[in-house]
Amino acid sequence: MGLAATASETIAAKRAPEFLSAVDRLRALTDADLQAVNREILGRLDSPVAMIPQLAGHLINAGGKRLRPMLTLASAGVFSYDGDDHVKLAAAVELIHGATLLHDDVVDGSALRRGASTANIIWGNKESVLVGDFIFSRAFELMVEAKNLGVLRALSHASGVIAEGEVLQLTTQKNIAATFETYINVVKAKTAALFAAATEVGAMISGSGAQDEDAMRRFGDHFGVAYQLIDDALDYSGFEYALGKTIGDDFREGKMTAPVVFAVARARDEEKPFWRRVITEGRQEKGDFEKARELMERDGALEDTIECARSYTRKALDALEDAPQNDFTSALADLVETSTARGA
Amino acid sequence: MGLAATASETIAAKRAPEFLSAVDRLRALTDADLQAVNREILGRLDSPVAMIPQLAGHLINAGGKRLRPMLTLASAGVFSYDGDDHVKLAAAVELIHGATLLHDDVVDGSALRRGASTANIIWGNKESVLVGDFIFSRAFELMVEAKNLGVLRALSHASGVIAEGEVLQLTTQKNIAATFETYINVVKAKTAALFAAATEVGAMISGSGAQDEDAMRRFGDHFGVAYQLIDDALDYSGFEYALGKTIGDDFREGKMTAPVVFAVARARDEEKPFWRRVITEGRQEKGDFEKARELMERDGALEDTIECARSYTRKALDALEDAPQNDFTSALADLVETSTARGA
Repeated sequence: MGLAATASETIAAKRAPEFLSAVDRLRALTDADLQAVNREILGRLDSPVAMIPQLAGHLINAGGKRLRPMLTLASAGVFSYDGDDHVKLAAAVELIHGATLLHDDVVDGSALRRGASTANIIWGNKESVLVGDFIFSRAFELMVEAKNLGVLRALSHASGVIAEGEVLQLTTQKNIAATFETYINVVKAKTAALFAAATEVGAMISGSGAQDEDAMRRFGDHFGVAYQLIDDALDYSGFEYALGKTIGDDFREGKMTAPVVFAVARARDEEKPFWRRVITEGRQEKGDFEKARELMERDGALEDTIECARSYTRKALDALEDAPQNDFTSALADLVETSTARGA
Repeated sequence: MGLAATASETIAAKRAPEFLSAVDRLRALTDADLQAVNREILGRLDSPVAMIPQLAGHLINAGGKRLRPMLTLASAGVFSYDGDDHVKLAAAVELIHGATLLHDDVVDGSALRRGASTANIIWGNKESVLVGDFIFSRAFELMVEAKNLGVLRALSHASGVIAEGEVLQLTTQKNIAATFETYINVVKAKTAALFAAATEVGAMISGSGAQDEDAMRRFGDHFGVAYQLIDDALDYSGFEYALGKTIGDDFREGKMTAPVVFAVARARDEEKPFWRRVITEGRQEKGDFEKARELMERDGALEDTIECARSYTRKALDALEDAPQNDFTSALADLVETSTARGA
């Protein structure tokens, strides 16, 4: 591990607590609702088929930050929404996310998530696929109960876009010719679409009008891209405890995330065989990950990934300025700023 | 292959054309709408991610009977519905079914469906899981456009029940202690729930009231159980060409369908090790399938499966009598009767 990588790690580890504080601040603001969301989720995972609540419960209770449902609750808070539907929709958003995680872990063959064994390792791939389908259906049942066609449109559309992004990611995996534009399309689909829908529906149920819905949708969209960019940078520069997942997963799977896209584009001729071997051919040896990190540091691949996240962060904050300003708005602004600061 | 099995096969092969004629009659009655359904489906599978329309198109165009969407169209016809939403909903029903098939084939490791290679064989398991999610999401987007909350409730609920049934089936696989009651629960969930929703929503959009919705829901539910019972009997007694899928799949996968449940319950002491070896342990040898068929014939396991289907068929026809009587009603009655006659 080179000195440069160590410096980057130190910064990531130092800044992660600020993000967690911002998450805590948002959690405090939405606390009662968030507990209702957890109860709603737990109730929806019930089934006479015992494996379903077991497997689904393992995933849902595995210590996720509940970031997406908090976005919905906070967005409703921005518009002083005083009904109950935000709880249902926040729960639906988290269930969609959970179903996606189950299928992702099967597709990626992941063994660890948030420090615990994944459901596909404990119960099996088949089980994870089918319980994922179950959770996804329950999410839809739940959102139908909010009886808002605009909300249903937004969330069902987001679900399709997420799947589309996952397929695009799969087809670009191990393809070192994949461009930054393709990468951003993957990120917008697999991550930002649900962030955007999560914040948009908070405005929708508040009935505050198309302009506010648009502002919150743009906020979620830009935040989602910034968030994923930082996650993808941390997969090369972060500490495991700060990230809550195994480091280097993207590298091992040959995912064409921004750090790799930049590094490959800037590689010297004599380094191209290295990238072809580790990404295209997937033949990785001890020390390859460290070498990849060094090349990324040398060529500014990580720094540019983070700079790109900063640019999306500014757009997210701009969008938020179009919404009413209160405690929820400032907690959301804090969240996106500290999230990006995780990257340094 | 014993004489008894051959006799049963001859009957199955003789009767299958009657069912196909009934399907054709229903297709003729719903023809223009069914073509609109096919166009709607095709349009919904479009995506800039090229693999999606390729993989999804392979599945959807692989010569399925379009039985479930025809149920929705015919059910709307029973109530002389004259809007456009039945086309959207019929397409959504077929898409839900298609997504389920993609995931089923991954879970079962199936190589053949309707005489063609399955998508998981051609494109891969990961791809089938993710494109299945995409199709499922598109089904929801489509049904949201019908703007009917009752319909959304019925179809999203059915989707959850299907997944629940698939998990239940998976957990009872290879378990020779599985009861007929559990088997029926699996069938009601994995097959009948979508049949029931498909026919129920036809009544719902017609606005003909709760009694008609209930009659059509019961019709679809009972028909679905009868249909699956016959399919499960044909997996032991049918010809491949009549069935359109590989024969003996259930046996190889150790599925506890009615024929096996009955045969195991009636097995003599000295035959129990056979069932344990082929089902519980999954160690199957040449000649085992033929032996299983002989034991089923001897103990009336297939005949009782078919008799059970006849009983559900009667209940389906009873339910249909509560609906308005016209060409659509009689075509539906014809369909369920000839479907059950496939079993002899």
